[in-house]
This record gives sequence, C-alpha cells and structure tokens, in this order.
Amino acid sequence: MTGGKIKIQDNFWSYYRDLIRTEVIPYQWKILNDDIDVNIERERKDDSIPNEKSHAIENFKIAAGLKSGSHYGWVFQDSDVYKWLEAVAYSLAERMDENLKILADGVVDLIGAAQEEDGYLNTYFTIAAPERKFKRLSESHELYCAGHFFEAAAAYYEAAGNEKVLQIACKLADCIDSHFGSDKGKNHGYDGHEEIEIGLMCLYRLTGEKRYLNLSNYFLYIRGTDPGFFEMQKKEDKEKSPLIEGMDRWPLSYYQIHKPLPEQDTAEGHAVRLVYMCTAMADVAAITKDGKLLSACKRIWRNIVDKRMYITGGIGSTVLGESFTFDYDLPNDTMYCETCASVGLIFFARRMLENEVKGEYGDVMERALYNTVLSGMALDGRHFFYVNPLEAVPECSEKDPGKSHVKCVRPEWLGCACCPPNLARLLASLEKYIYLQKGNAIYANLFMNCEGIFETSDGTFTVKQKTNYPWEGAVCFSLNCEGKTPVIFGIRIPQWADDYSIMINRQVVNAEIKDGYIYIHQNFKDDEIILNFTMKVEKWYAHPNVRSDIGKVAITRGPLVYCMESIDNGPHLHLMFLDENTKFSYRFHEEVLGGAVIIEADGYMREPGTEDRTALYQKSGPAGKVRRKVIKWIPYYAWANRGMNEMQVWIRQALSFL
Amino acid sequence: MTGGKIKIQDNFWSYYRDLIRTEVIPYQWKILNDDIDVNIERERKDDSIPNEKSHAIENFKIAAGLKSGSHYGWVFQDSDVYKWLEAVAYSLAERMDENLKILADGVVDLIGAAQEEDGYLNTYFTIAAPERKFKRLSESHELYCAGHFFEAAAAYYEAAGNEKVLQIACKLADCIDSHFGSDKGKNHGYDGHEEIEIGLMCLYRLTGEKRYLNLSNYFLYIRGTDPGFFEMQKKEDKEKSPLIEGMDRWPLSYYQIHKPLPEQDTAEGHAVRLVYMCTAMADVAAITKDGKLLSACKRIWRNIVDKRMYITGGIGSTVLGESFTFDYDLPNDTMYCETCASVGLIFFARRMLENEVKGEYGDVMERALYNTVLSGMALDGRHFFYVNPLEAVPECSEKDPGKSHVKCVRPEWLGCACCPPNLARLLASLEKYIYLQKGNAIYANLFMNCEGIFETSDGTFTVKQKTNYPWEGAVCFSLNCEGKTPVIFGIRIPQWADDYSIMINRQVVNAEIKDGYIYIHQNFKDDEIILNFTMKVEKWYAHPNVRSDIGKVAITRGPLVYCMESIDNGPHLHLMFLDENTKFSYRFHEEVLGGAVIIEADGYMREPGTEDRTALYQKSGPAGKVRRKVIKWIPYYAWANRGMNEMQVWIRQALSFL
Repeated sequence: MTGGKIKIQDNFWSYYRDLIRTEVIPYQWKILNDDIDVNIERERKDDSIPNEKSHAIENFKIAAGLKSGSHYGWVFQDSDVYKWLEAVAYSLAERMDENLKILADGVVDLIGAAQEEDGYLNTYFTIAAPERKFKRLSESHELYCAGHFFEAAAAYYEAAGNEKVLQIACKLADCIDSHFGSDKGKNHGYDGHEEIEIGLMCLYRLTGEKRYLNLSNYFLYIRGTDPGFFEMQKKEDKEKSPLIEGMDRWPLSYYQIHKPLPEQDTAEGHAVRLVYMCTAMADVAAITKDGKLLSACKRIWRNIVDKRMYITGGIGSTVLGESFTFDYDLPNDTMYCETCASVGLIFFARRMLENEVKGEYGDVMERALYNTVLSGMALDGRHFFYVNPLEAVPECSEKDPGKSHVKCVRPEWLGCACCPPNLARLLASLEKYIYLQKGNAIYANLFMNCEGIFETSDGTFTVKQKTNYPWEGAVCFSLNCEGKTPVIFGIRIPQWADDYSIMINRQVVNAEIKDGYIYIHQNFKDDEIILNFTMKVEKWYAHPNVRSDIGKVAITRGPLVYCMESIDNGPHLHLMFLDENTKFSYRFHEEVLGGAVIIEADGYMREPGTEDRTALYQKSGPAGKVRRKVIKWIPYYAWANRGMNEMQVWIRQALSFL
Repeated sequence: MTGGKIKIQDNFWSYYRDLIRTEVIPYQWKILNDDIDVNIERERKDDSIPNEKSHAIENFKIAAGLKSGSHYGWVFQDSDVYKWLEAVAYSLAERMDENLKILADGVVDLIGAAQEEDGYLNTYFTIAAPERKFKRLSESHELYCAGHFFEAAAAYYEAAGNEKVLQIACKLADCIDSHFGSDKGKNHGYDGHEEIEIGLMCLYRLTGEKRYLNLSNYFLYIRGTDPGFFEMQKKEDKEKSPLIEGMDRWPLSYYQIHKPLPEQDTAEGHAVRLVYMCTAMADVAAITKDGKLLSACKRIWRNIVDKRMYITGGIGSTVLGESFTFDYDLPNDTMYCETCASVGLIFFARRMLENEVKGEYGDVMERALYNTVLSGMALDGRHFFYVNPLEAVPECSEKDPGKSHVKCVRPEWLGCACCPPNLARLLASLEKYIYLQKGNAIYANLFMNCEGIFETSDGTFTVKQKTNYPWEGAVCFSLNCEGKTPVIFGIRIPQWADDYSIMINRQVVNAEIKDGYIYIHQNFKDDEIILNFTMKVEKWYAHPNVRSDIGKVAITRGPLVYCMESIDNGPHLHLMFLDENTKFSYRFHEEVLGGAVIIEADGYMREPGTEDRTALYQKSGPAGKVRRKVIKWIPYYAWANRGMNEMQVWIRQALSFL
C-alpha cells in the first residue's frame, strides 16, 4: 500500500490506538490462551455457536504435538491468532515493545511447529480431520485462515523483521499453489469465504513472487464459473457431518458464486465475504490493470453506496446469512451491520483509491471508520459489538427472537471472535488510510494530527496535519518538498462539507473540486494550507425508497452520525420527533464519553400513554399529549457505554409542509 | 355449545359457506388423496417442510394394512383428515348431501380400520415408529391429532348419526385415559400442542362421560408443573432423531409449560397452542366453575386484547416459533398472524362468553372473523394464506429471507396444511357463534341474515335477523316467544359503534349498554327491533407504545379493517399519507371483489425519487415532491385477489398539530 511513512499523534485517534496497544492486544492474548475469566457471548441465539472458551493457542499446541487434546472452536479459530499477530505487527511498527515482540516471535514459532511437512497449516484439519483437507471448501475456511496468516506474516515481517514468519507463509502459499489451479489434476476450487486472495496479494507485494499474484487472480476468476462445485465436494466428502452447522440453507449468492465475478453487478450474500472479494478484485486490478475486474468493482461499489449502505457505513441488511438483501432495504432494528463488514468496506474503498482517485472512496472510508467501526469497541477496549444497529431497545433484543443478534451492551467477547481483532488491526494500521501516493501526487483522505514523509522523484516530501477533527473543521497542512520538482497535493473535500475555505500561507485561494478533491500543484517550501470545513449540525433524509426511514431524519455533524440514547432522553425514543425548523446547538463536553461534542435541540415527545388505561386501538386521536422536549444526541460510535438502554439514529420529523 | 338451532341465509356469509361446500371440501378431498395437481408451497423457506404431496388418506390406508408403503408428511398429517371430516359434518348439518355422506362414512371406516386393537390411533406411529408411542410428546402431536378426531367425531355423529365414529373416538379416548393420568405407573405427560383438551370436552358434552372431563382437566393442570418432562422424555427416547426438525431451539414458553396454567398471566409462545389452551381452560371452567382456570383465562385474555393483538384480530408477532413476543410488539411486516391463531382466538372468545357475557368477547370474534380469518382464503376458495401480514411488498417477501413467510399471493396449498381446513370448519359452523343462550336469556353476538330457534323454559323463542351487514349498519330482529315467559334478549353493541339507534316496533327507545350489550326483556309477540349502527369510515390510532404504528392510522368501516393495494394505488404505498382532516367517501361496488364497499380519500404521496439520480442520503430535504393523490382502500380480507402486489393497512398521517 502506497501511503508514505506516517506517524499519527492525534487527540482523537491516539486514544483508540493506545487502547489497542495497552488493552485490546494483551486482553485478546489472555483470551486466546483461555487465561482470563470473561463471559463469551454467542452473537445471537444459536446453540451451535461455541462459547465456552477460545482454545485458539491450545489448538496450535495440540496441532504442533506439544500437547494432547482435541480441537475446540470454529473451524476458522486459527484466524483469531493471525489477526492478533497482525495487530501486534502494526502496533510494534508504531512503537516497538520488546516484550511484546518476544511474545509474538513465540507465536510465530508455535505456528511454525503446527505447520505440516508439506506446508499445510490449519489446526482443525491437522488435529481432527486430516483426511478432509481441501475437501469441503464451502465451509472449511482453510484458505480463509491462510489468507489471514499471509496478511499477518507480511505485516509482522515488515514490523519486526522476523524471517521465519515469511518462510512459513511462503511454504503454506506454495503448498496451496501446488494443490489449486486450472492445471489438470489440481483442485479447481476456492474457499467459501474470500480472504486468501487478499493475503496472497500481500505476499506478492512483499516477495514479488508472481505465482502468488496468479493464484489470487485464479481464485477470483474460478469463482462462480462452476456453481455446483461446493455441492459436488459435499457429495464426495465421505465424512458427511458439516463443518459448520446450518450452512446448507444459504443460496449460492451467500458465497458470491451465483455468477462469475466479472459479471456481478450488485452486492449479494454474506456482507463480509462480498467486501473481501471486492477488496481482492480491486487489489489485483490495480496491479494487472484488468478492466473486467475493475468495472465489476465499480458496479458493485455503486450498488453498495447508492442503494445498500446505512448512513453509519454499516452494510448487511439481515442477520440471516449476515447478508445483503436488496436495493433500499435498510431496516434499522433487524439489520446486521457487522463490524467486520465495515472494516472490509474500508479495505475495499482503499483499494479502489489505488485504481482511481475519487473522493467518494475516502468519504465511505471516513463514514465507516468514524461510525460503525468505532462503534464496534467500547471506550474501555474490553467490550465489542459484532452487530451495530441503528435502533436498539433492550426489551426487543431480549424478547423478540428475531432480534437476539441486536445487543444493547457490548459483550466482553464473542463466540465468533472475528470482529474485535479485525477492528484492532484496522485501527493499528490507520497510517495506511490517511494518504495515497501516486508518483509525485499525494492525496490526503483522512484528517488527523500526523506527519507524513513521502519519497518523490526528487527527494522527500513532508506533510504535517494539525487539526481538532472530528470536533472542529479546520485542518492545517504544513508542507515541504526537499527537491525542486513540484508535488500535486490533493485534499479530499468530504461529501458532508458544503462550505469550506482554503488559505495558502494565510491568503484565501479558490480551488475547484475535481472528483472530490481540491488540488494544489507546487513546489512546497514550508508552506501552510489551512482548510476550514464549516461543521454544522445537519439533518439527512434517506432516499424515498428506503421504507424504514420515510418521514425521518438522521443527525450528523462533520463525519459523525449522531444518535439518541434513553440515558439522556428518557425511554420511548420512538415517541420523540422534530419539526422542520428545529434549531440545533452543540458543545464539546470534556467529561462526557471520553470527550465529545453533544448536540441538543428543542423537539417534541408524545406521552407514552398509560398501560392500564390506554386502549390498544382508539379512534379519538392518538393517545398521549405532545409536549416540547429538549432532545440530546451523542456520537453514534459512543453509544452503549453507559449501561443498557435504548438507542435510535433516525428520528421522525413532523410533516409541516401542509 | 348453547346457541340454539340456527339457519344462516346471508348475502355476505353464504357466499363463503357455499364456497366451503362446493369448492373447499371437494378440493381438499382431492388433495388428501393426492388426486389433483396443485403447487404445495412451503409456508416459509425451510427445507424440512414436506411439500411433495399430502398422502394423508394414503397414510390411513397403509396403517390399516390396506396398502403397503411408508408414512409421508408431518407427524400430525392425520389431523388434516379429521378437520376435513369436521367441516364435512357442519356442511351436512347445514345441507345434507348423500354422496358426501357416503364419502365421509367411508373415511370413518378407514379411520376405524387404522385404529389399533387397544384403541390407539395415529398413522405415523402405527406405520413408522410403534415403539415410540407417547414417548416424545413434545413433538409427537399424538394427543393433538386425537383431539381433532374427537371434535370431528362429535360433529359428524351429530350431523350424520354415524355411531361408528363415536365408538372409534371413545375407544381412542379410553385408550388415552388408560395411559395418562396422575395414578402411579401412568404417563404423567401431556401433548406439546394443546388440542386434546378441547376434543375431550366435545366427547364429554356428547356422552356425559365424566372421565373425559377429568382427563381434559388433568391435561390442563399437569401442564407446566414439571417443566423438565419433555427433556426427560427426550433423554429416554432411544430413537434419538427428532420427530420434527429444529424443535430443540424453542423455550418452554413455546409450549406454555414455563409455569403451571393457573399462574400464567400473559400470552406466551406459539400463538395457536396458546389460544387452544385457553379455549380448553375456558371450556372446562364453564363446566367445573373452576375459578383458578377462569381467572387465568381472563388475565391472558386481557393481555392479548390490550397489548398483543393486531387491529385485524391477528395474533403472533414473530415467525420464530410462530409466537407471541411481548407487550405492544406488533410489527406489521414480519408478524405471523396465522389464520389458525385467529380461528383459535374465536374459539377462546366463544368459550369465554359461556363464562361471562361481555361484549368484548363478541367484539374480538367479529374482528378476527371478518378480517384475519376471512383473509385466510381467496375469493375462489382454492388459495389460502397461512400468514396474514398487515404490510406486504413482493420484493421484500422474495429477497429478505426474514420475510419468506410473508406471502403476497395465497398458495394453492401449504406444506403444513393446518389453516385451510381450520378456516373451513369455522365458517361451516358459524351458526355456533351468532347467539349465546343461557336459560331464558339469548344474546346476539354476530349480525347476519339468519333464523334462530331456542328452547326456553316456556316453549320456543324464535328470532330472525335481517341485515346488510357488514356493508350497512341496520339490523332488524323479528322476535317471537311461544309461551308466556318473557325472554331477555341482549344485543351486542360493537366497540366500533359510537352511534346507534334502537327502535322497537318503529318506536325509538333508549337502552343502556351493560357490559357491551343492550337488553330488551319482554314477552315478544312478533315484535321487531331495528338496531341501526352508524357505519362511518373511522381512523384508528394504536397505543403509543406500539412502535410500528406510531404516526400512523388504520382505516375501518364497521367491523372491517381496510387496506391499500398497489393495484388500486400504484406502487410505493409507504410513500402515501393522510392529513388530520382527510375526508373519506365510500360506495358499494357490486362488481369489485365479489361486491364490496370501497373507500376513497384525498391523501398525499411523496414521489419515489429516481433510482439513478437521487442520492441514498441527502440533506436538502426529502427527495421527491409531495402531491395530492386519491387513495383507495379495500376490505382487508379481500386483498391479494387480483395478483401479486403491495398491501398496507397502517398509513402515515401528517403531524399537523404544530
């Protein structure tokens, strides 16, 4: 990823990044070792979800022959360890910690010990089902786990210079390469869950080994060409028991194999799988300049962003298959909006930027990052959401079995623990997302206090951001080119910012927006650009085809989506509403939720009616008087940090056009 | 049931009752014999639902040893035959048909042939699992099927004088009585699905056999006293495979065994089971004067009617377990509202009337009957709904896996075929629901053209209704007492009728409403009472705690709930709305939907916005202009008779209080 050498030192983000280093990484390490007493919750009511322990490190020890015992957990339990290792790598890259490095080196040794002679690596199959290797790819996650290991290995090699991790990875990649491909006699399959395609690209970028690029490309192109492949494997798999219960019920689109990738137009199926697939397609296309892959990416992107994405950057409209459904179907209270899916959406957006510099990719990265991704973790770094609803009521989550996945407080850990380490590796590698460099052009996509150093054709170019984003809209860039060649410096103007001003060295200048960026093209010599976005409280309306949001507005300020919680507003949030002329005020509160801008407005509330005396249906007009009420909003990412309570993003607005 | 001898000859109801006789009964007979090529749909996306054929008669032939083969269908497939027989009985009682009687006598013979030596009767267990009889009652439906047979047997004996059917029933009841009960060594269990309790009461009323009353009472009282019973049976059941897939996931409340019946306060679990249980409780309490059972009935009734019932008389807020959820949780687009549940709610209400004469029982009977029950069948008598939504959009049903149960056209038949024959037996026995007699008091609960003859202490009392209900609000009663003793004649004043007038022999009189009835107490001699309800179009508001209906109104006229369909209004029904001052007009259309009052009003519609050019989120105000639009409503029961289209009951109303 071409983003320069970046050092982040930011009021807002360093809090979360420090949390990853000081809380999340050690906390997850204890969990991976079953060395801490936490309540591992199932992500929804489903008895087949393993939730007694993690056992992930133990699985490696058993596979390595260091201990006896049997495998426990999901068939993809290994990936928890790999994502932990990847987060550790980024954390060490930011700030070396010798003890942590020793620990991680030990994990690499353990992984190496669990690897088989021929390079195969997967503790479940080594321990429990060696005869079923690569024989039930729809469920096995073998290549998925390998992909996560490749990502971790590349990151850890780069951060800690550990040669062994790269050797293990290449040995595994070579093993897979020897099994899979279009050659006769090879396995013509692919994983049910895309990910290896991304991992292979990491290895390719690091090693230059063309086979890895080709294999990634192969896995993308074979997908969906033979939709009967998984069924055929299932029939051939002598051991009939499924690797994951209940997978039979999903359609081909769940795996994105309903048609060949270059022919896909819409975002279908399991949301995380879809965005991982798109990430890989965009990644490969950026290297191979494959127009077919890129245009499929563009079509799917359009479909997500124009028709299937929540205002929070969440994706996945249903818990059933954790999937997309159809255009404009964006229910607020039953959706999935998995943290991992928004992490993956950021991956996809970042790879699209490599292909074409358009502001909307940065807009979506920002939207997903500041809202759904950040919402995935509590302010204490020890509680995590899998699902990020836009409307949550404790009674509904408890008593409506169709909402058992909509949790109103973040669990300490999850039976399927994919989200916490995914969030950790993203935040720990935030450096990769701030800038994009293409030759002598540098594009600023995210705003935070940081220093960037880029190698241009004529020496280094340095740029320093100073800002109080996301609370204030001013961003000051200090820029300097070492050499004589001018640099093209592009700054994304966020979609939410109608109003902004630019000053260069305190002189107001005009700059036209082109594809979401303004450009300053010059040989910077200690120059200063001050960009000032007017950060107003805004009301947003959804497309009229979004049934769930009709007659409602969502409140934002800058990149942050806001929500109401009943701890601030009292219960029955659904009875609160605004009128068209509502005036908002806001103020930064140092002491609230780790410091946040809180919004208030004079709204209305209909009284809830008495349970005993108000009829279920009455014709004399709605029960309960309407009264004025001050309504308070907090940033969406910070909800559910003050105990169990109701939360709501979209609020009704009176139709006062009459 | 004490309701006099009634003869219905009604414009509105005779259409449906003729349909039952001329279409439904012969049609179902062909289906039971697999003698017709129909598309049997699964009631939701679930591969475990058998939908190749009915095989119900074939199962009996195999069990009787007349054919070889194996059992096919649900473990409760027999009940389809029993409910068919019950509908036939009522149909013959209304109008004798010798050919049909010969057919039904043959079915009785077949059932008798399938009965085992000791009286046991259930084709699944006789054919496929004799060693598991009564050993897995949570799923087996053995007693449930027996209950349906008892109901059918009593009805058929009464209608056709068939002695054999009663003998088979008593032999089966005696067999069950010998196996179940509190005595040592007996099975202390009960069925997972209540129904036998109702059936035993039918047998008891017919035969006077106290053991049947006691056994019914036993099954009610044992329920929930040992919540571990089903689990214990499952452990003991050597054959581990479940009789019905996926039953493991339901909580105890699904079966209403979370606590003893007299302690239950709320409507919990599977909605049909709950109302069948309540029907039996009310039935037994009416005989035994058991205050504990009756007060549990009253509490559960209050909970349903005040907090858990749709305006259409539908019940069951979730497809998951076909269950109730919690107070005020009444989603319009994901609910269950099974036809059978509303049929059962009518049973429950009718039995409560036996216990206490209150208008609200008749109100709920009327609400459920004219709306959800009638909606269960197409106007052609050959298509049936299992689920009766209050909002349906074909795209949602097709593409949201969480709405696969919400069908937008009635299937020709259903994998689980409980609803069509349940509806048939209710409509065919509508005579039972019109009046209630208690000694010399006669209560009129439903309004339709019919003649009633009642035996009082002093000869017969005859009452004739003349009305154009539900289209017009005038009901004319012609009354005559044979003897000299005055009769108390009570007429229910429906909850929807604010305004009504009473004339006796063309003289306006005043009559006070007491518990929902007006009373005229006299020795009628060819007297005429004309009751005139003002049938206005009304807007109803839900309790503010009903999250799904906030800001919305439902339109009714008389007992009928109305709905919008897109065939009349165009697509995007969710974009249509009213203001507070909307004026409605209505007119009877002979040619529409078999003749119906259609409602119109000047409302509004927001334009849907263009798919390509309207952003998913925008802050410049809602996309799409609002324009005036004539909105049209049809009776809810008649929806989905003109092809696949959108339907919606609740419509937004602009908040014009500002």
